[in-house]
Amino acid sequence: MMSRDEAEVLAANEAFYAIFASRDLTAMEQLWARNLGITCIHPGWSPLQSRASVIGSLRGILDNPTSPKIRCVEPRVHLLGETAYVICFEVFSGSRLVATNVFAREDGEWRMVHHQAGPVATSDEAEEEEAVDPGALN
Amino acid sequence: MMSRDEAEVLAANEAFYAIFASRDLTAMEQLWARNLGITCIHPGWSPLQSRASVIGSLRGILDNPTSPKIRCVEPRVHLLGETAYVICFEVFSGSRLVATNVFAREDGEWRMVHHQAGPVATSDEAEEEEAVDPGALN
Repeated sequence: MMSRDEAEVLAANEAFYAIFASRDLTAMEQLWARNLGITCIHPGWSPLQSRASVIGSLRGILDNPTSPKIRCVEPRVHLLGETAYVICFEVFSGSRLVATNVFAREDGEWRMVHHQAGPVATSDEAEEEEAVDPGALN
Repeated sequence: MMSRDEAEVLAANEAFYAIFASRDLTAMEQLWARNLGITCIHPGWSPLQSRASVIGSLRGILDNPTSPKIRCVEPRVHLLGETAYVICFEVFSGSRLVATNVFAREDGEWRMVHHQAGPVATSDEAEEEEAVDPGALN
């Protein structure tokens, strides 16, 4: 059975993706930690390692009328005491990414501290790739 | 000044990359947490979320004579109490990836619990991409 912490982390993770539909920048800012440092690696980007750059990049996405809604699929939470991370797929516009979302408890709430998303093979490709040696993929 | 925890986490992170040169599977197994769950997202792969699949994938890389040595560049540690994560670039064979490596303190040692690596733009590309809206990159 899922613990209360796990359920709260999954709810925060779900809220992150819901904001790409609601485009609510205030909700996005509140979702991320305020006292802890925050970081973000968008697919193909160099890492953003300051609050200004992370929130600025998210504002750019939410302000862009062409940026897609993102559906979170198969989220799985991994709890590490006062920190947790979720691994999930992000599905939108026929694309699929895989993400790591790190959360930390701050002021009694689970807040996001890090996000990395990157490309993932489609199911067919994944089956083929898992049959070969991972070294060959680098 | 760097704290002792930060220095220890960076050393564990450095050890992870050194193993791709030494090809020492025992050292690799000892680097990862033993009691906590471990997970790994290799570039382009579906996430591995069991000890057997994570260690198995790393064994495949270390056993492959053609898999490259990996140099870790610009590691930066983010401490969250008993958990920490490092963001760094991975450089090998003219390629460059960006990684998130999550560590947790277990039995008094900082051990790896999660790794995700994905593609990153080269410096020139990054400058161009950061000038456009991030929504367009999805």
